[in-house]
Amino acid sequence: MTTAPWRDPALPAAARVDDLLGRMTLEEKIAQLYGVWVGAATDGGGVAPHQHDMTADYDYDELITRGLGQLTRSFGTAPVDPALGARALAGAQRQIVAAGRFGIPAVAHEECLAGFTAWRATAYPVPLAWGAAFDPPLVEEVGRAIGRDLRAMGVHQGLAPVLDVVRDPRWGRVEETIGEDPYLVGTVGTAYVRGLESAGVVATLKHFAGYASSAGARNLAPVRAGTREFADVTLPPFEMALREGGARSVMAAYTERDGVPASADPELLTGLLREEWGFTGTVVADYFGIGFLQTLHRVAGTPAQAARLALDAGIDVELPTVKYYGETLAAAVRAGEVPAELIDRAARRVLLQKCDLGLLDEDWQPLVPESVDLDPPANRALARRLAEESVVLLDNPDGLLPLSPDARVAVVGPRAADALAMLGCYSFPSHVLPHHPGVETGIDIPTLLESLRAELPDAKVTFTEGCGVSDPDPSGFTEAITRASEADVCVAVLGDRAGLFGRGTSGEGCDVADLSLPGVQGALLDALVATGVPVVLVLLTGRPYALGRWHGRLGAAVQAFFPGEEGGPAVAGVLSGRVNPSGRLPVSVPRVPGGQPWTYLQPPLGLAGQVSNLDPTPLYPFGHGRSYTAFTWEDFSGPDAEIGTDGSYDVSVTVRNTGDRAGAEVVQLYLHDPVAGVTRPDVRLIGYQRLELAAAETARVTFRFHTDLSAFTDRSGRRVVEPGDLELRLGTSSADVRATARLRLTGPVRETGAGRRLRCEAEVSRG
Amino acid sequence: MTTAPWRDPALPAAARVDDLLGRMTLEEKIAQLYGVWVGAATDGGGVAPHQHDMTADYDYDELITRGLGQLTRSFGTAPVDPALGARALAGAQRQIVAAGRFGIPAVAHEECLAGFTAWRATAYPVPLAWGAAFDPPLVEEVGRAIGRDLRAMGVHQGLAPVLDVVRDPRWGRVEETIGEDPYLVGTVGTAYVRGLESAGVVATLKHFAGYASSAGARNLAPVRAGTREFADVTLPPFEMALREGGARSVMAAYTERDGVPASADPELLTGLLREEWGFTGTVVADYFGIGFLQTLHRVAGTPAQAARLALDAGIDVELPTVKYYGETLAAAVRAGEVPAELIDRAARRVLLQKCDLGLLDEDWQPLVPESVDLDPPANRALARRLAEESVVLLDNPDGLLPLSPDARVAVVGPRAADALAMLGCYSFPSHVLPHHPGVETGIDIPTLLESLRAELPDAKVTFTEGCGVSDPDPSGFTEAITRASEADVCVAVLGDRAGLFGRGTSGEGCDVADLSLPGVQGALLDALVATGVPVVLVLLTGRPYALGRWHGRLGAAVQAFFPGEEGGPAVAGVLSGRVNPSGRLPVSVPRVPGGQPWTYLQPPLGLAGQVSNLDPTPLYPFGHGRSYTAFTWEDFSGPDAEIGTDGSYDVSVTVRNTGDRAGAEVVQLYLHDPVAGVTRPDVRLIGYQRLELAAAETARVTFRFHTDLSAFTDRSGRRVVEPGDLELRLGTSSADVRATARLRLTGPVRETGAGRRLRCEAEVSRG
Repeated sequence: MTTAPWRDPALPAAARVDDLLGRMTLEEKIAQLYGVWVGAATDGGGVAPHQHDMTADYDYDELITRGLGQLTRSFGTAPVDPALGARALAGAQRQIVAAGRFGIPAVAHEECLAGFTAWRATAYPVPLAWGAAFDPPLVEEVGRAIGRDLRAMGVHQGLAPVLDVVRDPRWGRVEETIGEDPYLVGTVGTAYVRGLESAGVVATLKHFAGYASSAGARNLAPVRAGTREFADVTLPPFEMALREGGARSVMAAYTERDGVPASADPELLTGLLREEWGFTGTVVADYFGIGFLQTLHRVAGTPAQAARLALDAGIDVELPTVKYYGETLAAAVRAGEVPAELIDRAARRVLLQKCDLGLLDEDWQPLVPESVDLDPPANRALARRLAEESVVLLDNPDGLLPLSPDARVAVVGPRAADALAMLGCYSFPSHVLPHHPGVETGIDIPTLLESLRAELPDAKVTFTEGCGVSDPDPSGFTEAITRASEADVCVAVLGDRAGLFGRGTSGEGCDVADLSLPGVQGALLDALVATGVPVVLVLLTGRPYALGRWHGRLGAAVQAFFPGEEGGPAVAGVLSGRVNPSGRLPVSVPRVPGGQPWTYLQPPLGLAGQVSNLDPTPLYPFGHGRSYTAFTWEDFSGPDAEIGTDGSYDVSVTVRNTGDRAGAEVVQLYLHDPVAGVTRPDVRLIGYQRLELAAAETARVTFRFHTDLSAFTDRSGRRVVEPGDLELRLGTSSADVRATARLRLTGPVRETGAGRRLRCEAEVSRG
Repeated sequence: MTTAPWRDPALPAAARVDDLLGRMTLEEKIAQLYGVWVGAATDGGGVAPHQHDMTADYDYDELITRGLGQLTRSFGTAPVDPALGARALAGAQRQIVAAGRFGIPAVAHEECLAGFTAWRATAYPVPLAWGAAFDPPLVEEVGRAIGRDLRAMGVHQGLAPVLDVVRDPRWGRVEETIGEDPYLVGTVGTAYVRGLESAGVVATLKHFAGYASSAGARNLAPVRAGTREFADVTLPPFEMALREGGARSVMAAYTERDGVPASADPELLTGLLREEWGFTGTVVADYFGIGFLQTLHRVAGTPAQAARLALDAGIDVELPTVKYYGETLAAAVRAGEVPAELIDRAARRVLLQKCDLGLLDEDWQPLVPESVDLDPPANRALARRLAEESVVLLDNPDGLLPLSPDARVAVVGPRAADALAMLGCYSFPSHVLPHHPGVETGIDIPTLLESLRAELPDAKVTFTEGCGVSDPDPSGFTEAITRASEADVCVAVLGDRAGLFGRGTSGEGCDVADLSLPGVQGALLDALVATGVPVVLVLLTGRPYALGRWHGRLGAAVQAFFPGEEGGPAVAGVLSGRVNPSGRLPVSVPRVPGGQPWTYLQPPLGLAGQVSNLDPTPLYPFGHGRSYTAFTWEDFSGPDAEIGTDGSYDVSVTVRNTGDRAGAEVVQLYLHDPVAGVTRPDVRLIGYQRLELAAAETARVTFRFHTDLSAFTDRSGRRVVEPGDLELRLGTSSADVRATARLRLTGPVRETGAGRRLRCEAEVSRG
């Protein structure tokens, strides 16, 4: 028996796939473009928008006789014992292989935003905490660990990372993002992609593109953004994660920008992504996003039109389940409404990826792990490190922190004794378990209260909730005030409850009208402050909240963004002093709840001026964070210089830990462009380096600036480097500049090409 | 002696101007491009942003030897007796004529947003109230009256109307706009332009373009808007006011959109405005807007670069005073940095307009009015009519209004007894008099309290303020509660204090972080409602405020947008029943203070759905307003039909006043486009007709719809009519549809040309 060419691993992938396509019927090709979501809830417990009215009926056994391209969330849909789940997935694959003519297994997808979204799997800190750590190598390790776990369970593709750049912190999905700066999002997100891909798992960049800019921060609302903002803020993280991270899949966003839905935008999904950036992987729909072209965007009048628009734009794979790319699409092709070439184009991409994943190989066998532990100690150690690095000490004016080991501590607040306070809405216990009451979380998640008692065994720690997260009932204030009044210090643990579609105060579909603390938590904090007992505010949130009302009235303030299963010990460690805080804000903390949208990436007229009575200056700026030790910045090297518009320039500084304990400083490099052809952000991040320094240790960091980093999209839409003056500002935050190098760029305006430098490498030498 | 050709009225204007330009030195040409702002305050009392650091020093007597193109605000700067002011302006003109070689007088400019911004001149309702009246013919009369007063005083150009379309009601300048719908803004604004121009005064359309879309509603903040939003929402009112109103000047906006400041945008000020739309008048800078290119936008490195950018973009006239277009520009031309052709181009436009105004004629003489009354009875009658038509009865669920003639009425609130509560920030008493303490307002402005006492002579009316407008002091609540408790009904008169740059709660530079009632007025209203005495809320504001907190708890609610000097009697007339309210909301009234921006022009995903927990549905929708009488809508004619993509279609309805008193209904026509090539607003206004109906009277209104009205900007940037289904919805508001006509457009996609219909004419026949 001769092996068919498509089965021959010695042939190039393209030849194998072409051979295979030549053998397939239209229906078999189309079957590669969709999957099924087995086990998705139909009882109201949705984890995706419009889940219940968008799911089609089909006969699974009949369906898979054509083959099946994709399998959605075998683990991420209901609490399944991981070992059983892996065996079930393997069984499903064997069934699919057996049912179709060609015996090709499906690509298995899972969510992995902050860890594998599966029961009993490690819940890492959310991406916003990754941003706060300013530590891409560590995030890469986390990505690799997540990838290994996914791969071991037979999963091929992870639907992460989220590379949306925060444009309005009221949006519910801010917790899923890495922050409000495209360079930070790009570098940290790319590290995650590298980690995931290094384990053989396809990373899926999402949401391409513009989702975070929805008007009024309402989930999926239309995006108001110009093409330059889109090019210079929204797109760069995607470009970096593709070029430097090697991500093999991209998810089209739900949203529309200026009238054009991303899922129906050939300029975006084909012109930019494939033709300009050279992407060769797959583009997948966001869940039900193809149907939304008809039902929510109304740019398609029929299901067939929706399918055609999506396919034509460049969406290869329908997720999460077959509806628009199934019989609808086949009929439309046969009726001449959809060119067959579009089917071939998408099927070729899917099959090339399957080839790449080994799924076309004759000897393919589903993975059945011997033993399964999705939350082993090594994972927990990683989760702990990342959590510890991500905690931001906002303020500690009188050194109230660390707490005295024998202090009388009144812990108050609705987030102190709830394990779920540590998790974002894409961690399995928050994402799925609300629909399965009584099922245990499956992982150990110490609460902050438990952790603090463990950290401070000699302290007298009392606890009362004071109020609920979003409950308007203030009846618990009285006891809270009493407890606080009896203590040396009150630790107020406030924040969000992550959830989906209105079931939380943060998370997908949980947008807010303003940045007031949820429920009556602000009033509780007022009451605690009024006792006169020093208050340490600890926030466990998915977004920044306005804190101006309490400025100067708190003993200390600590911000943690859903720090994951090890978040309790991490935050408690900061409170006790075991951990020296080193997180930096990936998002600005505003003064007042209103006045949004605002991020720090503002041209001069977006900053405070004489022209509006509103002052948008944040209370704590992007990049801000304090430490228990002190650092001096010395020996700055950054002489005035002239360089060409294609030149390079080094800027260096030595940081000395002048305190008596180890700590980490994050040296941040900002670009200020004083005059440009279009308005430019006053400053924007172009480089950073986290430096771990023992007591008295020094380290010198040198940033290799290339003029490509000053490029922006000019009036004609080209990305150019302009001659003229520039300032490279080294600072501890976007607002605290420690040293400035002044450059003059000479020569012609230069258009940057496909190979432009995307990052400013930093070199560290230890003193 | 031969008259020079440029003096010859028999020659065409172009020939005269070319002759004149040939005789002028560079400095003389440039002198036509600037003016001076004599008497502008330098003591901190600014009426323009950055007024004090942007004003140049010059020697006036020396300056005018080159001629002088413009004169800024002889009346609008300080309280000047109108007769003296007119004589002073005439004297200044004689001096300018005498000093220059050519003897050409200046173009005299004044503000006239809501009446001539001059001491003792009529203060009409603000433009937002014009929007509420839905009565363009009446606004045209007002424009004509304002124009006559300006012209009689020697003023040539009025710096109005504001045609910005509200995109975020938090913006301080919302009071200066006509509302949140481009069709309403365009039709009402065009009527004002017609009126002003019919009196021989140059109307100045502002702010061109995009100013209202500033991020976070902060004045001058960068504008986030795509090109389609810009083309379909921002620009249409300008196009209509130019094509149908014949406006002869346009003011460039301060703001930038997507990085490009309007004042430095040749595509906007030349490409679109002149080349596409055929505009031949002058483009003037907003005050100091040229300098802002350097100081605030940072797209120019030097004053000369700023001047060149502005001139090159198409700004012909620097306002308010000479700085960047004076010696700076002359030197730059001589240095070869600015092409002399740009000077000629701008000077030609200015001189053509002067020719048009008769200012090049040999027999020109300054106007010196015999007697001056800028607030005659005819003006006041117009101001009254417009005020009365603009009051919106939001709600009156139990018929609490009109008030009983002999009721015990407790009037409470900081806006009841303040005459300035009636005026917006561009009316002279609010705009200028705050800098002249002790000077009387100069016009009679009855307060609402005085007016109500006059309306209800038999009622027992008490009054207490309760609180200040923005003062946090609640100590007056106690008396307010007492007064209310003693009454049959409490009339709570709340709202804004108009002012400039933080001196008010509404007005230029007085933006808000959210839409809560200012100060503690919301808490006062809570306290009044808690008394159990029925409360009539009367709002005198410059923007909509969130009223959801009191929904269902008020006896009645009345919204007036700064109704002008006759606003007191107008609102009191509504309360007493003398006036049957007929205003309709030109802006949506939201439920909650946060969640902005939002206007009713939303594609489906901008409306409430399952995808966000935030529901932006307004409490009172755009177009909403109640009456003391009742109307039925009968005999709808709008059969299902197929028409070509260049077709027309009539839709008719008969409205019958079924009550026992006269009243006015506003029939509104909305377009719903179920499927389009880009996402479209769910509904948008395309026609309306105000119908005054005596008791039992009927009127039939027929709208002549042409498919041009369904055009929108497609993906390629063309404005097209697409084939497919459309709905024409007749309603009493954007949310209350009374009848629907279903059309199918057939034929090819059609690009609309320069002559496309901009409005849906309505024909009324009386039954």
